[in-house]
Amino acid sequence: MPDQDRVAIVGVGLIGGSVGLALRERGLASEVVGIGRRAASVEKARACGTIDRGTTNLVEGVANADLVVVATPVDMIVDTVQAVAQAAPRAMITDAGSTKAAICSEIREASQQASSLAGDDGRTHAVRRFVGSHPLAGDHRTGPEHARANLFEGRTVVVTPQDDTPPGLVQRVQEFWESLGAEVVLLSPEEHDRAVAATSHLPHLVAAALAAATPEEWLQLAATGWGDTTRIAAGDAQLWTQIFRQNRRAVIDALRRFEHGLSALDEAIAAGDDAALSTLLQEAKRIRDAVGD
Amino acid sequence: MPDQDRVAIVGVGLIGGSVGLALRERGLASEVVGIGRRAASVEKARACGTIDRGTTNLVEGVANADLVVVATPVDMIVDTVQAVAQAAPRAMITDAGSTKAAICSEIREASQQASSLAGDDGRTHAVRRFVGSHPLAGDHRTGPEHARANLFEGRTVVVTPQDDTPPGLVQRVQEFWESLGAEVVLLSPEEHDRAVAATSHLPHLVAAALAAATPEEWLQLAATGWGDTTRIAAGDAQLWTQIFRQNRRAVIDALRRFEHGLSALDEAIAAGDDAALSTLLQEAKRIRDAVGD
Repeated sequence: MPDQDRVAIVGVGLIGGSVGLALRERGLASEVVGIGRRAASVEKARACGTIDRGTTNLVEGVANADLVVVATPVDMIVDTVQAVAQAAPRAMITDAGSTKAAICSEIREASQQASSLAGDDGRTHAVRRFVGSHPLAGDHRTGPEHARANLFEGRTVVVTPQDDTPPGLVQRVQEFWESLGAEVVLLSPEEHDRAVAATSHLPHLVAAALAAATPEEWLQLAATGWGDTTRIAAGDAQLWTQIFRQNRRAVIDALRRFEHGLSALDEAIAAGDDAALSTLLQEAKRIRDAVGD
Repeated sequence: MPDQDRVAIVGVGLIGGSVGLALRERGLASEVVGIGRRAASVEKARACGTIDRGTTNLVEGVANADLVVVATPVDMIVDTVQAVAQAAPRAMITDAGSTKAAICSEIREASQQASSLAGDDGRTHAVRRFVGSHPLAGDHRTGPEHARANLFEGRTVVVTPQDDTPPGLVQRVQEFWESLGAEVVLLSPEEHDRAVAATSHLPHLVAAALAAATPEEWLQLAATGWGDTTRIAAGDAQLWTQIFRQNRRAVIDALRRFEHGLSALDEAIAAGDDAALSTLLQEAKRIRDAVGD
């Protein structure tokens, strides 16, 4: 990982903490600095071994970094990336947000505005040094105490260059995630958002609706199937509200496809059409089986 | 387990095989006989150590049994229980079907018809010696090779007496499941079916619709959330078609509750109403958190 020996991580929760742990266990960074909003979070992250040192001061924390990973909640990423770009004028910057199109286009807009206002020479503004990432790894639990050094091993990380993102930047961020054991897929921010609407955001909505539709007196009969199908509904409600806000259109499109499929199942059951029902269930099984356990 | 030392299991797949393994490992039966439709299945069950001996001849297999567990697919349970009642005139009989109301009422009807036709004295017909069971344990995998002796440990088994089921029979079947490590809940067959429509059958439908709604080119982005939420869609399509047929009304009622909740989420996202969305997600999380991982 050349030129990435000093890494700063902004937001030291599950994802940021796992990046730090993985870097430290693999000996990939000369120093891992963690930046958090509250001193207590920073201290917890340090106590969990996820960072070498921590601070609540962003400017100080990123000053010498070669690479900055912004692992804050999605609604803070744009502002944080802008601040990092000012404070660390040579660092490559990526994030770990679950949505990409709004974040990438807002960083571009804010960056271009700042550039034209300040007569910036283009060296410090964010858009030339930022490329978005989304590691498809996580947990419904949060906090650095659940961080794992192997969280990214064998998992997919989507890196989302825009048309004018420098290819060298994309390559270096790709190598960074690969050095943590991940497989990188390149998609445009918009493609990414449509895909994760189907594979992540819709499942969360459905899991939440399913949990909410279960009368509490029957929860004692909830077995493995209910537990699996509703598990992600235990995720943080505030974080997910932000994600749905940032990916509203693609989520609603995915929801329409889901409702269409559910109606077909509903009609087959109501009509007692076992042949149609069995065919629909078999097709769903085929798609599920393609992914593996 | 008094008077249950000779146990016959009809249907030696995952559930029947696990009953057999648990009985044998715990030393609870002097003999475990497995009855299957095909010689190959019976031989596989024996090779997997789930039964002491096996046969494809139901009459011979159950002849000396004190307890018969019918673990066939749900659409074969009624006929099998009737046949067992004739062939094993003193055995207690239970099943392991995922639906209960249709099975219990059909056994009663068939049993009463047989009794009036034959001038039966009531000793051999099924209804006095059958009580339904549903172990809330299983796997999306099938077959005796996936059987586990601990499958029922700490799991709930619903036993579903009807109004006139002899209390002594209920107690002995309850003790049987408890001897395998399960916790028994007593519900009427109808209550059972309404409850599992919400906790088991609806999750399967939703998981299937979710898997089917995922464009295949995006499956490479399917991560833990998608995997958990769709896992049960890998279940056997034929078995689930039977289950939905047998519990149609309760499943459709549960589906209406789910759609109502999903619409509320949909509207909050479409309207950009973050406060409402967050409240709905928080309520779902509360119910999910009540169950544990």
